[in-house]
Amino acid sequence: MRNGTTAPDYPALLERIAADVAPLVGSGTPAEYIPALAGVDPYQFGMAVADLDGNVHGVGDWRVPFSAQSVTKVFALALALAEGGDSLWERVGREPSGNPFNSLVQLEYENGIPRNPFINAGALVVTDRLQTLTGDASSELLEFLRQESGNPDLGFDAEVAASEHEHGDRNAAVAHFMASYGNIDNPVPALLDHYFWQCSIETSCADLALAAGFLARHGIRADGTRLLTRSEAKQINAVMLTCGTYDAAGEFAYRVGLPGKSGVGGGIVAVVPGLCTLAVWSPGLDRRGNSVVGVAALDRFTTLTGLSVF
Amino acid sequence: MRNGTTAPDYPALLERIAADVAPLVGSGTPAEYIPALAGVDPYQFGMAVADLDGNVHGVGDWRVPFSAQSVTKVFALALALAEGGDSLWERVGREPSGNPFNSLVQLEYENGIPRNPFINAGALVVTDRLQTLTGDASSELLEFLRQESGNPDLGFDAEVAASEHEHGDRNAAVAHFMASYGNIDNPVPALLDHYFWQCSIETSCADLALAAGFLARHGIRADGTRLLTRSEAKQINAVMLTCGTYDAAGEFAYRVGLPGKSGVGGGIVAVVPGLCTLAVWSPGLDRRGNSVVGVAALDRFTTLTGLSVF
Amino acid sequence: MRNGTTAPDYPALLERIAADVAPLVGSGTPAEYIPALAGVDPYQFGMAVADLDGNVHGVGDWRVPFSAQSVTKVFALALALAEGGDSLWERVGREPSGNPFNSLVQLEYENGIPRNPFINAGALVVTDRLQTLTGDASSELLEFLRQESGNPDLGFDAEVAASEHEHGDRNAAVAHFMASYGNIDNPVPALLDHYFWQCSIETSCADLALAAGFLARHGIRADGTRLLTRSEAKQINAVMLTCGTYDAAGEFAYRVGLPGKSGVGGGIVAVVPGLCTLAVWSPGLDRRGNSVVGVAALDRFTTLTGLSVF
Amino acid sequence: MRNGTTAPDYPALLERIAADVAPLVGSGTPAEYIPALAGVDPYQFGMAVADLDGNVHGVGDWRVPFSAQSVTKVFALALALAEGGDSLWERVGREPSGNPFNSLVQLEYENGIPRNPFINAGALVVTDRLQTLTGDASSELLEFLRQESGNPDLGFDAEVAASEHEHGDRNAAVAHFMASYGNIDNPVPALLDHYFWQCSIETSCADLALAAGFLARHGIRADGTRLLTRSEAKQINAVMLTCGTYDAAGEFAYRVGLPGKSGVGGGIVAVVPGLCTLAVWSPGLDRRGNSVVGVAALDRFTTLTGLSVF
Repeated sequence: MRNGTTAPDYPALLERIAADVAPLVGSGTPAEYIPALAGVDPYQFGMAVADLDGNVHGVGDWRVPFSAQSVTKVFALALALAEGGDSLWERVGREPSGNPFNSLVQLEYENGIPRNPFINAGALVVTDRLQTLTGDASSELLEFLRQESGNPDLGFDAEVAASEHEHGDRNAAVAHFMASYGNIDNPVPALLDHYFWQCSIETSCADLALAAGFLARHGIRADGTRLLTRSEAKQINAVMLTCGTYDAAGEFAYRVGLPGKSGVGGGIVAVVPGLCTLAVWSPGLDRRGNSVVGVAALDRFTTLTGLSVF
Repeated sequence: MRNGTTAPDYPALLERIAADVAPLVGSGTPAEYIPALAGVDPYQFGMAVADLDGNVHGVGDWRVPFSAQSVTKVFALALALAEGGDSLWERVGREPSGNPFNSLVQLEYENGIPRNPFINAGALVVTDRLQTLTGDASSELLEFLRQESGNPDLGFDAEVAASEHEHGDRNAAVAHFMASYGNIDNPVPALLDHYFWQCSIETSCADLALAAGFLARHGIRADGTRLLTRSEAKQINAVMLTCGTYDAAGEFAYRVGLPGKSGVGGGIVAVVPGLCTLAVWSPGLDRRGNSVVGVAALDRFTTLTGLSVF
Repeated sequence: MRNGTTAPDYPALLERIAADVAPLVGSGTPAEYIPALAGVDPYQFGMAVADLDGNVHGVGDWRVPFSAQSVTKVFALALALAEGGDSLWERVGREPSGNPFNSLVQLEYENGIPRNPFINAGALVVTDRLQTLTGDASSELLEFLRQESGNPDLGFDAEVAASEHEHGDRNAAVAHFMASYGNIDNPVPALLDHYFWQCSIETSCADLALAAGFLARHGIRADGTRLLTRSEAKQINAVMLTCGTYDAAGEFAYRVGLPGKSGVGGGIVAVVPGLCTLAVWSPGLDRRGNSVVGVAALDRFTTLTGLSVF
Repeated sequence: MRNGTTAPDYPALLERIAADVAPLVGSGTPAEYIPALAGVDPYQFGMAVADLDGNVHGVGDWRVPFSAQSVTKVFALALALAEGGDSLWERVGREPSGNPFNSLVQLEYENGIPRNPFINAGALVVTDRLQTLTGDASSELLEFLRQESGNPDLGFDAEVAASEHEHGDRNAAVAHFMASYGNIDNPVPALLDHYFWQCSIETSCADLALAAGFLARHGIRADGTRLLTRSEAKQINAVMLTCGTYDAAGEFAYRVGLPGKSGVGGGIVAVVPGLCTLAVWSPGLDRRGNSVVGVAALDRFTTLTGLSVF
């Protein structure tokens, strides 16, 4: 924790940010690869901040549920580390992956070991590990999110899961490819099921900001028990900063300067270690798959508070 | 600058770090691709810290000159931005590059635009830009380092430059390849000359810590004048964090958690924005090309001071 | 047919070839990726020649059944062209593929269109097409082979098919990957089933030499009806010459100089258009997956007869 | 030589072919990467046939000189084999290369050994070898072409050579890249000079058909002495068939069915081993870099004579 940093006045700050980004709301394009996401109203925006004690503040559509998608990868990673420990890193790296076009050739070059847990290949390995450890990866993940967010109503979106499945050939290709290198333990169809259910979990900004609290608390859960070692929490934050926003990690590091993880549903979670967690949502994406208004709002946050790393 | 952060007691801290890493000194393997580097005594270690006011503290071989190599890429980037502004980013990206094996195919896929200014392709573009802007890139860079370090004796190492040239076919390939896309303005042989001279500059830890001060001072030079906008200084720090340590940026982010740039001479520069700059040197490299003892010493620094980003 | 070429004395020729390659029998290594193939006795060799009228001559183990594997790709291609015509070439190319390491990146670069019908990706497209055209690709293929060889006892090897399935993750990855580009019409699991059954068909040299006769007869089947246009038969022969022997097509062209298709079971079919067809079998493979003794025997054939193309 | 094949009536045949392709003349687009080629009148067409005794027949612009470009690669290969023998094949392969986009990654994957002598990388290795063997590769090659064609007026086109040099960054990149693997013996700038001069040689169809005669005569030169062993001549013909027409070798094999080598100047040389050699020229290229009318004319030749391989 940073010595002497005083917490900002979050409600005022959030109002200010909402006003600043208001002209942008509606920008970008919602994800189009599955109908369930393509139909979302792009004129929505919400943002929430949760402090270390679990107090949460929000603005706009901060209590509206949306499809968490890849944001769930952070929580799956945390659970897999908590349940199974550091041996996970023998099966997935922690380095940025370069641009996406070569994910398969990179997998081939590196013998089926994905570069990091936030590209799809790496997330599949994480879910595979979680499945082996728990026997029911997606349900465990949902239960974890319910507990950390304090929201027992969190659930899967069956329509989204079915839609993911129907358009899931590329993920299936990646999973079988890694299986051919012995880096998938469970049957690929079962793994894909859990993966698509995982992606379909619906959460609000409030839920996500609270659920990510353990990353600001250096590994301590909402109930005060320890989920991760301090070192493991650091690992996750570092991977978020360098790999959390698809092929825009460098841009995100420069503009926002915080560990963050985005999803194609338009959500982003970010962490100020030792101080607070942020969640922001707006469905319109930029060409790299990150929420246009979400990135802008986080940019405003660090600019206004001086909490940027750099 | 972080509110309320008090500066550590640097001399005591450096002694402590030196003691902690002493058992490691001699580990790793000096760079072997040119004889001038391969012959360096690996049992050397130095570390220096410079505060915002230009006071510098050191331990071990902190005044011994060594081959700065890729550490110079940070300074060349700063000069190119200072002289020519943001249009540089049209010719080089700011994203991590993934593993090195595919640098050429990535260049091809992205039409001759390198991923970032710290891979060799990107550094060649930066030097090319600097050459166009100044007419004598390597001399301008040397002069800049002399001024910022306050050391008028800094110079090139002609033997190293010649050796780089002799083993420079891969850099020549990359430069010609980018030229075929119109992304090199100067004649390739002249560009390579400046690039090899740049890599050969000899500096000590003291020199580097002082010379990098403008990155901790958000763009202000040693003489109080402005070199870069605050935004440009942030850009460089962000690129250092995500791309500064070859294919170990994720690992470095996790272990050290500071913007840093390494060189195959065994040197590393790191920045605590708003507080201080660090330079560390020990010739033995790990398999990814970063100084084994250097990374360990920076790891100790952030662990002991709590100054890590995460 | 070549004007004036007189047919060799096949029985004497085969005896001569068998004697010439006898010292080599047992060389190479049987395919090891599935147990059913790895256990085959490598000290077997057979060769058969069938003339245009369906007379067949043989030597050695020329009536012993073995796993046809990729040799079946020629027959599947012929059937798919016969049933569905040239539109197949919109979904698969006719160019060599370079070395195998980059099959996936090449598929990605070329939007899911495989380079030719003899790499696995292309063969999967052919089987997919055949499945759409016939509703039961593997049974149709088996029936076709029975008719052309005149051997009603030809059948699948269930153990081999099951073994292929168990080790089929890479083929599954390729199929799903092409499906993600819309280049697979049938459900991937069903397609893979047919593909693995297809590979498992057992044939002898006698069967294969007879069954391939339509390629020497410019498209005319054993019963005198037309299967393919003359142009289609030429297409298949050309693709065999340039793409039929994995990453050794150039070597095969130089040494043998005939259109040929090999399989990892150790079989090879070759064609002297207008004159005869050849089948050869010996389980030991070279490092590129072609039968060591098989290639040597075909080499002797063209050397002794002067029938080489070059 | 094929037993019993009677030579066609060449003059009548050539007239017929010229009439057949007349509607196509002017199709395609002359090479545009250098001005000297882009400016050529596309409405030109010539074709020549030379028999084994050096009698040559022609039609159209068969005596008009044009830029031989990559057609010279066949002759450089023959000379390098003649002068230095089979050890050349340790430095360059004989397999097709797949599509051109991945030439550099393939070079990297295969440690600087090009796939075959007809891609640019491979041709550079051949010229490098010839330079080492003779001390003046381009002059030796020109002299060889003069002798075999019987035309002492053959020469370089200095404008084309200069233009190639000016646009030669990609070739320079490839040469330096191979040099970094130790697969280039001569200084890269000198090698490139010889390579660009080689490409600039001007020849007519008559010259090329005569000069290639040794490939139809199984290695015997115009003066009756032996240039290559029979085996080496076969090697070259096989490499021409599988690799001689850029990324259209499969298409060329199917349509023409003869060993052939094309150049971006619009020329193509083809060989009927044991019977004759063909040269055809028309500047308009298809999208893969082969002469549209040239391929059509060769297609007619094999269709009308039945001399196709398949």
